[in-house]
Amino acid sequence: MTLRVDLNCDLGESFGRWRLGADEEVMRSITSANVACGFHAGDPGTMRHTVELAARAGIAVGAHPGLPDLAGFGRRAMAVSAREARDLVLYQIGALDAFVRGAGLRLAHVKPHGALYNQAAHDEALAAALVETTAAYDPGLAFVGLPGSAMERAAGHAGVRFAAEVFADRAYRADGSLVPRGQPDALVADPVEAAARVVAMVQEGRVRAAGGGWVAIRADTVCVHGDNPHAVAMAAAIRAALDAAGVAVAPLAVGA
Amino acid sequence: MTLRVDLNCDLGESFGRWRLGADEEVMRSITSANVACGFHAGDPGTMRHTVELAARAGIAVGAHPGLPDLAGFGRRAMAVSAREARDLVLYQIGALDAFVRGAGLRLAHVKPHGALYNQAAHDEALAAALVETTAAYDPGLAFVGLPGSAMERAAGHAGVRFAAEVFADRAYRADGSLVPRGQPDALVADPVEAAARVVAMVQEGRVRAAGGGWVAIRADTVCVHGDNPHAVAMAAAIRAALDAAGVAVAPLAVGA
Amino acid sequence: MTLRVDLNCDLGESFGRWRLGADEEVMRSITSANVACGFHAGDPGTMRHTVELAARAGIAVGAHPGLPDLAGFGRRAMAVSAREARDLVLYQIGALDAFVRGAGLRLAHVKPHGALYNQAAHDEALAAALVETTAAYDPGLAFVGLPGSAMERAAGHAGVRFAAEVFADRAYRADGSLVPRGQPDALVADPVEAAARVVAMVQEGRVRAAGGGWVAIRADTVCVHGDNPHAVAMAAAIRAALDAAGVAVAPLAVGA
Amino acid sequence: MTLRVDLNCDLGESFGRWRLGADEEVMRSITSANVACGFHAGDPGTMRHTVELAARAGIAVGAHPGLPDLAGFGRRAMAVSAREARDLVLYQIGALDAFVRGAGLRLAHVKPHGALYNQAAHDEALAAALVETTAAYDPGLAFVGLPGSAMERAAGHAGVRFAAEVFADRAYRADGSLVPRGQPDALVADPVEAAARVVAMVQEGRVRAAGGGWVAIRADTVCVHGDNPHAVAMAAAIRAALDAAGVAVAPLAVGA
Repeated sequence: MTLRVDLNCDLGESFGRWRLGADEEVMRSITSANVACGFHAGDPGTMRHTVELAARAGIAVGAHPGLPDLAGFGRRAMAVSAREARDLVLYQIGALDAFVRGAGLRLAHVKPHGALYNQAAHDEALAAALVETTAAYDPGLAFVGLPGSAMERAAGHAGVRFAAEVFADRAYRADGSLVPRGQPDALVADPVEAAARVVAMVQEGRVRAAGGGWVAIRADTVCVHGDNPHAVAMAAAIRAALDAAGVAVAPLAVGA
Repeated sequence: MTLRVDLNCDLGESFGRWRLGADEEVMRSITSANVACGFHAGDPGTMRHTVELAARAGIAVGAHPGLPDLAGFGRRAMAVSAREARDLVLYQIGALDAFVRGAGLRLAHVKPHGALYNQAAHDEALAAALVETTAAYDPGLAFVGLPGSAMERAAGHAGVRFAAEVFADRAYRADGSLVPRGQPDALVADPVEAAARVVAMVQEGRVRAAGGGWVAIRADTVCVHGDNPHAVAMAAAIRAALDAAGVAVAPLAVGA
Repeated sequence: MTLRVDLNCDLGESFGRWRLGADEEVMRSITSANVACGFHAGDPGTMRHTVELAARAGIAVGAHPGLPDLAGFGRRAMAVSAREARDLVLYQIGALDAFVRGAGLRLAHVKPHGALYNQAAHDEALAAALVETTAAYDPGLAFVGLPGSAMERAAGHAGVRFAAEVFADRAYRADGSLVPRGQPDALVADPVEAAARVVAMVQEGRVRAAGGGWVAIRADTVCVHGDNPHAVAMAAAIRAALDAAGVAVAPLAVGA
Repeated sequence: MTLRVDLNCDLGESFGRWRLGADEEVMRSITSANVACGFHAGDPGTMRHTVELAARAGIAVGAHPGLPDLAGFGRRAMAVSAREARDLVLYQIGALDAFVRGAGLRLAHVKPHGALYNQAAHDEALAAALVETTAAYDPGLAFVGLPGSAMERAAGHAGVRFAAEVFADRAYRADGSLVPRGQPDALVADPVEAAARVVAMVQEGRVRAAGGGWVAIRADTVCVHGDNPHAVAMAAAIRAALDAAGVAVAPLAVGA
């Protein structure tokens, strides 16, 4: 049976006059776009444009909702309640979906952004809020999150399809967690090395840990970061390596 | 044949810590709620709560999108392009609709707010942008606007169902336009007088003009303002007068 | 020697169309206004108006900077760095001071708002950032904060005049901390009881603890909350009780 | 007597995660930085950093206040009242000045941004609001605006020092107005040509008009746009040409 994986990237993170990311170029290599919804980045015009680009590129579109913190790009932890999280995520999913349906597509997945993603990895109530809101909006949506996290547990409880995400350009610790960004060797900068790691994750279900040894990891979708200068080369290298290894690169299948 | 009219009110105009309007009380008298969508007022939690109240009250829910001007409550004219208007209105409709569908309802209409409404009354390109965006989102939606305005003309061109709106508490000039807010006698403060005017508009298709004489007017829906202390009494008086006159007070019928 | 205390209230917390607090009425009883600076509440027009009211009432004006979270009223904890905190507090102090000087006054103090206040009570680096920024702007400013907190320690290290704040309407635990808002009996709702507690704090340096017994407390300034319906009566009762007890109610003296 | 002119550029127009402009490089050629104040662009951290860069470069710093429209970069006309304009400009001047004084500098000038600049060129009440607010804050501040506009007239009435601004990269019409951006030949893209035009403006008090012939123009300060890829080369070419022509390039002198 052919191995299969999705390649995702956070896109549509420009805002008004400010440009960020090489969306159109990255879309040539990936299969799923996580589109910012206006709270941490993205504005209505950017959202429409990004969805149109994705439609033209033939890739899947998901919502990438964030905390209401434009100045902090949604990267500062914020004590939102589960109730607030439900409401702000539903708002963002609905807003993006209007553009997705307007482009003749169907929304495929939801992936929380930045601090919301990190908080929901540990906070069970927050994770349940995000997962249940996603399922209530459309039971066919996949929820993209960190494997082994509160998000995966919440998806299991709620019967929501969970897509385990791995990071192409991040180092992992022996316990499966990511080496924090501040530390040396947190990032895998070389596209060739990153691509080889991704192929191993998909084919062997494991990745070499930062301190040595291997750590088991499940990869339904691989995240390529889009907001750095090497994003285009990185995405292309990973795609080429997966193609060469005979791995089917395809979006997360849409549910019932 | 029974005369019929809708009674609408702008609701959900609180924001975060700040409360505005007696939404729950006003809902006892009206048949359609125009719910703010987060740009001029409203936040995700307020939107959900307002839609839940409307569902419980058994009234129709429409989107009330505004300009991106929270500090100005969407009342300051702003040079948005038609392209920008399409995007910001679609964003707001989609966001609200997520809560509407979440409450088991179907979005019934769209009515632009404040300066966006006033600008679209005169600007043909802007009016077309709003009307076409509404129809593209859902052809069954009614578009609520000023009779005789660019909005009505745009709806005619686009084949969109247009609901002519009259104002219960505003004085009209002989040409059918409203006496501007700054002027003396711009407002009809007395609920009994306002109610009598509304009954005349519906039954006779006319209203007494500010300078004397009558002006012809078509009323598909009557706007009751919700953000003043007398809103509840005003709405109740109008509803009672219409009921007493044998006019059927009912929401705008949802289209195909 | 006459005992002396300041009576402060958070004011200017309206935003645009939304009104909050009975600023003008409360100003009759207090001696210091903490004015919101636009991040958690307040807008330029509200700030000017509030400062003008304070000038007319002859009371001192301080800055009340908050986290950049309008929708959450600055009450949600947020992981801002010390560097970010310095910048956002300096921005807000400068903005308010323009109105203060425009009204012919001199800025008297700085008191952080909401979650920023609570976070700085425990986070030494954050507390140092707030205190040092205040002193660098104007060494004559007093810094208002929780006695015994990281804010008091940081002020001590930096040689900044610290004003210990007590709360008229909050219950205290035996260790001097506040009973959290969610708990029963967290609030002292009765103006007469609150006034008696304040007099005891000032005259005896102690307050009855929630679980019984007394807790020692130093009161340079007493906070009266302004955003509830009883704020005016509460402020008046406390002022009357202090006056009757022969305590001098006066603003924090401005430094060199 | 030596001819003298100031060279200014709009800087500090990044926001949060988003970078805009080559501020540090442009500062090598100019003498005055107009720093965004957080309403159309700029955030507290960006403001501090930009002011620090200017202090290190030894150039003058002015406030560049804009309309409250981050998504539109302050370029969309907005119906703010004169009262609102006073308040929002004073807020922004005060906020920036806190960073300016923190860096040991003195604020040198105020130049409105984008649509606020354009609206104040024609609207006498708005122009008076901006000029009077500037003078009330600090009578030593220069006000930078379009020569022959309502801003210059308002400065004359108020006794405020007015600095006439010319544009290095824009074409002029025979009446002294700018060729609108949308039209062909609105921009002078070639640095050599732009530099020659600037020298002529300063030395001869005239510039070649778009349709042919010359138009008289007074240049106290020359604006170099900072948000395009050629800004650095453009600024350097103009500075070199002025130096070669023996024109003294120096900031607007600070008033009493």
